[in-house]
Amino acid sequence: MRKTLKEIAEFVGGVLEGDGNIEIVGLESIEGAGEHDLTFAVEPHVDEAKTSRAAAVMIRSDVVDFPKAAIKVDDPRASFAKLLDIFAPKLDTPKEISDKAHIGKNVVLGKDVTIYPFAVIDDNVKIGDRAIIYSNVYVGQYTEIEADTVIYPSVTIREYTHIGKRCVIHNAASIGADGFGFTTKDGVHTKVPQIGNVIIEDDVEIGANTCIDRAAMGSTVIGHGTKIDNLVHIGHNCKIGPNCLIVAQVGISGSTVVGNNVTFGGQTGTVGHIKIGGNSVYAARSGITNNMPENYFGAGFPVQTHASWLRLMAALKTLPDMKKEVKRLAKAIEGLMKGN
Amino acid sequence: MRKTLKEIAEFVGGVLEGDGNIEIVGLESIEGAGEHDLTFAVEPHVDEAKTSRAAAVMIRSDVVDFPKAAIKVDDPRASFAKLLDIFAPKLDTPKEISDKAHIGKNVVLGKDVTIYPFAVIDDNVKIGDRAIIYSNVYVGQYTEIEADTVIYPSVTIREYTHIGKRCVIHNAASIGADGFGFTTKDGVHTKVPQIGNVIIEDDVEIGANTCIDRAAMGSTVIGHGTKIDNLVHIGHNCKIGPNCLIVAQVGISGSTVVGNNVTFGGQTGTVGHIKIGGNSVYAARSGITNNMPENYFGAGFPVQTHASWLRLMAALKTLPDMKKEVKRLAKAIEGLMKGN
Amino acid sequence: MRKTLKEIAEFVGGVLEGDGNIEIVGLESIEGAGEHDLTFAVEPHVDEAKTSRAAAVMIRSDVVDFPKAAIKVDDPRASFAKLLDIFAPKLDTPKEISDKAHIGKNVVLGKDVTIYPFAVIDDNVKIGDRAIIYSNVYVGQYTEIEADTVIYPSVTIREYTHIGKRCVIHNAASIGADGFGFTTKDGVHTKVPQIGNVIIEDDVEIGANTCIDRAAMGSTVIGHGTKIDNLVHIGHNCKIGPNCLIVAQVGISGSTVVGNNVTFGGQTGTVGHIKIGGNSVYAARSGITNNMPENYFGAGFPVQTHASWLRLMAALKTLPDMKKEVKRLAKAIEGLMKGN
Repeated sequence: MRKTLKEIAEFVGGVLEGDGNIEIVGLESIEGAGEHDLTFAVEPHVDEAKTSRAAAVMIRSDVVDFPKAAIKVDDPRASFAKLLDIFAPKLDTPKEISDKAHIGKNVVLGKDVTIYPFAVIDDNVKIGDRAIIYSNVYVGQYTEIEADTVIYPSVTIREYTHIGKRCVIHNAASIGADGFGFTTKDGVHTKVPQIGNVIIEDDVEIGANTCIDRAAMGSTVIGHGTKIDNLVHIGHNCKIGPNCLIVAQVGISGSTVVGNNVTFGGQTGTVGHIKIGGNSVYAARSGITNNMPENYFGAGFPVQTHASWLRLMAALKTLPDMKKEVKRLAKAIEGLMKGN
Repeated sequence: MRKTLKEIAEFVGGVLEGDGNIEIVGLESIEGAGEHDLTFAVEPHVDEAKTSRAAAVMIRSDVVDFPKAAIKVDDPRASFAKLLDIFAPKLDTPKEISDKAHIGKNVVLGKDVTIYPFAVIDDNVKIGDRAIIYSNVYVGQYTEIEADTVIYPSVTIREYTHIGKRCVIHNAASIGADGFGFTTKDGVHTKVPQIGNVIIEDDVEIGANTCIDRAAMGSTVIGHGTKIDNLVHIGHNCKIGPNCLIVAQVGISGSTVVGNNVTFGGQTGTVGHIKIGGNSVYAARSGITNNMPENYFGAGFPVQTHASWLRLMAALKTLPDMKKEVKRLAKAIEGLMKGN
Repeated sequence: MRKTLKEIAEFVGGVLEGDGNIEIVGLESIEGAGEHDLTFAVEPHVDEAKTSRAAAVMIRSDVVDFPKAAIKVDDPRASFAKLLDIFAPKLDTPKEISDKAHIGKNVVLGKDVTIYPFAVIDDNVKIGDRAIIYSNVYVGQYTEIEADTVIYPSVTIREYTHIGKRCVIHNAASIGADGFGFTTKDGVHTKVPQIGNVIIEDDVEIGANTCIDRAAMGSTVIGHGTKIDNLVHIGHNCKIGPNCLIVAQVGISGSTVVGNNVTFGGQTGTVGHIKIGGNSVYAARSGITNNMPENYFGAGFPVQTHASWLRLMAALKTLPDMKKEVKRLAKAIEGLMKGN
């Protein structure tokens, strides 16, 4: 793939600065860019980009005095992402059902579905147009996967799951395993059958080795447009709203209800059976133990406002000194009291 | 499946209140229940159940003035769980060894074993009666799996593992991978061969993507009746006692010995080479760094009694204020001293 | 396998104390050793070894008055590890390409490669001499795996990955899944194509269910000799230096650069886009939020020196008491002021 800087500027609707005839052969990070590559830069990396080896840089419209050829756009990251789709080396994937895959009874396959060797599509499954099912995937009975969804290798999707359109599920994710439900009598735990399912709405991405458990009854739901990173646990009967971002190693306990557009930083945990309001951000490693309002910026364990947590962290740093100061004051008071 | 309320009351040994001829077609959560469904309710959800759409509710014997048809029992959760086994839609699974599975040499299979396509049973494996091995499972050489155990897809069980009766192992769990053991000389790490194995006793459940490492020497042991959630790590040579509950994302470091009936809340971690006494509960995200006694209720990092941790959390909240107060007192004392 | 104590002492270059004709049939832990076994002991376990049932014990040269037959060496753990390679029961693995595996087009296989049933080697893959690929592994297009590397079952390695010599990748690890990269506009998240790859250098070990994401652009790199435990997350574009130890459930966020010989204790987390200097140790559950220097011993969240964290933990324990003391002082001062 070769494109001139002028062609690229036109494609992203940006303003060209410098020689439009420069030929770009690759897209790269600032650090990795060579002399025929385009990179992009937003603060605090703009200075670094100035001295990079890149042939040209995609920058924000308000950057001035940039010493290299540049394409100015409103959102360099987003415009660059669009280019990646064009420049990325496309893999040559077969549009076919491998005769080494196992297709059960009463399976309904849409148009141009790809199924790789050793995938197992169990009985009564329905798979939509252009879906891609990689090797060693298991799709359980009565599950439905809608159009344009990609399931990477070793993913397991248990029975009665529903997966929407344009979803991406990464390696070895577990969708619909039994929830962790037991009744305990005299110290012995007895399994509560987990007869619900999982519903994953459209445009959801699920990270590698992430686990989303089926509901005890009813459904565990992941709302449309929500993106989940690797190694995340989502317990049975959770309802995660649309357009959330759930970063790696987060754990959301069972029956928790999350609003729309909530970001959970990495390694955050929540107790179960709570409601977490929408349009909120929780910093990495938050520990959420109660119902939470909308429009919240939380941090810490137990979670509190981010501002409160910063104050607490600042105070904590001074704790050993404070301890000494309290001792000094006690002694001074003792002296004063004796002096009286 | 249709049963009258009277039939259900008799089946669970409960006391019927209201119309015994009501036909129940499904079991549902309070929220999800429709007009032909039975649900159950324990506090604090009994009021919610009163106004639900459910046809009838299973409640505790001591609930009074319940406005709907009801079945009263001692433990609604446990009685309801029994019903789930009856009402749950059973999957039609083949009782057969798929000719697309790979069965190695000298494999001994019990009666009515199910093996799905693309499972691999390596040489010298023994599998008990009625065990079910799903697709893409790998069972390593000389491993034994006892009767009535279910192994879900993409689970890997390495060589010389022993798995007891009635166990359930969920998607992509890793049983018997090498422990994390190295010797270090001049900054270079050399692998210590991990020649032990894993023993999983009867009635154990292991969550999706959970990892239980083989012992360096001897055995890593999971005691009978212990239930482990998703994404848990159990290091080499751990001995986990019977009837424990280990919630999602817990990490138990190598050679740790845990007594019977210990509950670890989610994201708890322990150091290695310690003993944790039985009949104990550790709250979510506990960090256990020392030997622990029996009958302990712990929380926090470093772990302490739950009561102590609550006091600490309460004091912590006031820390920024305390800091100001100490400054005020210092100033007051300075004034007093000058006044002298 | 049977060897005399004399033969073993010679093999490890140790000094024999006691009867060299004792026949050793197994290697065991102190606890597990029987009367024909050799064990090893370093402090604080030397006393325990004295009363063990072991036939003989491998100990440090400076141990005196040891009451059993012994082999004295400089580093008992390392010498014992060497023996394990000899005594360990070797599995009889086929040196062949299973005809039940799927081998794509233009695949180049070295000498004596083993590929188990239902492994998938996609088009244009290159695999080095003596590499072992277990069942249900997927190796994506254009990936290269060098000589003597072992890939355990259900591992997925996506396209364009490079894996060096003598690596070990455990069950269901995910190598090269898409990084977690999105641009957000009006609350809707759009995927940034992840067109980079993963490079794993020589002698790396990667734990079960661990996830190493491909770079957005360029490469995610794991340096030679680095050992990674189970359930670890390494985000896109990370550069992990050589000879690091990354313990279970650690999360390293995207674009973080780690120097050589860094140990991260279990459940540690880092933010992204930081540099962590080499020759450092971070205690379990550290939370690293900033660039870090070399030769650091860190702990806590936010991370600080281990010594500072110990001081803080000590002060924290006294916080509820300190709170009471501050109240007492305030009252005393009030009294003094009134007294004036």
